[in-house]
Amino acid sequence: MLQCQQRVNKLLDTHLDQDIPSQTLRDAMIYACVGGAKRIRPALVYGSAQAVDTELDRADHAACAVELIHSYSLVHDDLPVMDDDDLRRGKPSLHKAFDEATAILVGDALQSLAFQLLAKPIPALSEEIQLRMVQLLAEAAGPKGMVGGQALDFELTGQSIDLDTLETMHKSKTGAIIRASVQLGALCKPSVSAEQLSALDKYGECIGLAFQIQDDILDVTAETKILGKPKGSDERLEKPTYVSLLGLDASHIRANELKEQALDSLTLFLDNANLLRELAAHIIDRPH
Amino acid sequence: MLQCQQRVNKLLDTHLDQDIPSQTLRDAMIYACVGGAKRIRPALVYGSAQAVDTELDRADHAACAVELIHSYSLVHDDLPVMDDDDLRRGKPSLHKAFDEATAILVGDALQSLAFQLLAKPIPALSEEIQLRMVQLLAEAAGPKGMVGGQALDFELTGQSIDLDTLETMHKSKTGAIIRASVQLGALCKPSVSAEQLSALDKYGECIGLAFQIQDDILDVTAETKILGKPKGSDERLEKPTYVSLLGLDASHIRANELKEQALDSLTLFLDNANLLRELAAHIIDRPH
Repeated sequence: MLQCQQRVNKLLDTHLDQDIPSQTLRDAMIYACVGGAKRIRPALVYGSAQAVDTELDRADHAACAVELIHSYSLVHDDLPVMDDDDLRRGKPSLHKAFDEATAILVGDALQSLAFQLLAKPIPALSEEIQLRMVQLLAEAAGPKGMVGGQALDFELTGQSIDLDTLETMHKSKTGAIIRASVQLGALCKPSVSAEQLSALDKYGECIGLAFQIQDDILDVTAETKILGKPKGSDERLEKPTYVSLLGLDASHIRANELKEQALDSLTLFLDNANLLRELAAHIIDRPH
Repeated sequence: MLQCQQRVNKLLDTHLDQDIPSQTLRDAMIYACVGGAKRIRPALVYGSAQAVDTELDRADHAACAVELIHSYSLVHDDLPVMDDDDLRRGKPSLHKAFDEATAILVGDALQSLAFQLLAKPIPALSEEIQLRMVQLLAEAAGPKGMVGGQALDFELTGQSIDLDTLETMHKSKTGAIIRASVQLGALCKPSVSAEQLSALDKYGECIGLAFQIQDDILDVTAETKILGKPKGSDERLEKPTYVSLLGLDASHIRANELKEQALDSLTLFLDNANLLRELAAHIIDRPH
């Protein structure tokens, strides 16, 4: 996992080291993407590429693209009119380190860059597969995916909702990009089978939900210093969470159930799926 | 031109009429894209497709995609921390009609949707061409293009700059998407020649700059009611403009020079470029 982290950090450094007209934008884009990030989504891309036994360098652009989308979403999320978080990964949020206008533009620029990178021709992949990858990530990031989930999150804030509605929200808000990351890695092998894709999708779906449950748990139990962002944000914002709906114990149980389901779906990949297994354990047991 | 407008309006209606998790987001996306827009960028896509003598339906996705990018940029631009405009196309800006968080999310969602649409397979086009189209639009929208120009615009506000710097800023801020629109239309003909692409790119470059000069002129001369947004915004925001640097008369002359250059570059397309000629005239002579 550490190797994936280092690999994507190095790649992001390269891709962000561009000659662009605005120096402030350049600096702020680097600030948004560099330092302290866990790089779970790129690791899922690589883990999935490894599971289907294909070369990791084919997955490099996809790994960077999912992280760029994730980074943009964090920058926009932290804005005062959104979640209003002043701290991110233990540092001032981007709009604090720069300003709000820059934060909006950085998010917009990172999103464009993600698609630009994903559409760059890779000799080992067919254009057909690459086009499918662009579509997949765009759908996962867009109104039916991440952004749609975010909007639903706002709509539901302060409301009393049931577990099904909460799950629908999270499946799009955090689940869609996590699921897409796993799919993107698998698509780097042109001969990937429908059975493999479907097993990995099951893994991605379970891991995506488990990730969010763990996030809700950590928002209550972890300290701000470890979390790298203010604890108790969800309660302050009156957001419905797994913990507020199920309680802490049942939330732990549900997260572990999902982890087991995720691991079960990896059986057919034998040892090739070890990185994905490690990631599943990490997502559930992470301290922040 | 009216036909292009109607065509893209109808297509946008269809593409925005989606079943997405958040009803507010859906309504706000429609609000952002529907009604009163001039649809100049889609018309450039169609005009260019017509110039190279290819079927317009191949250009439909590209025409929608450029308009989605343009619409997202307007929604984000109007935000209080950006240009702080309460009026757009004669209606309340999106953050006034909804709220600021929704405006940020709508912009983000429209950008994703643009790339999702552009990556949708079109039987008449090769995947290679489509991938190139995605890259082209992503680059034009991103840190080296539109968003980069926006950021530079902020950096330069209140500063005294020369004409070269102003031109660099506008070439990315408004020019990049206009140029990309013209290129996208031409790429819909797989057998388009390098000579044709280069002539159209010259046209796009000139039209892009002329468009911005005319925008600067209108900000000073047109009435708020006709403009659909508050007049004098540039001066209020202390933005350097062609008018502030060159004066009104010289700005008019420069815009007309660029129009002539744009028209000259269309000679080889004979009558097929009539729509592009009409657009050039419209861009310079438009009242708003």
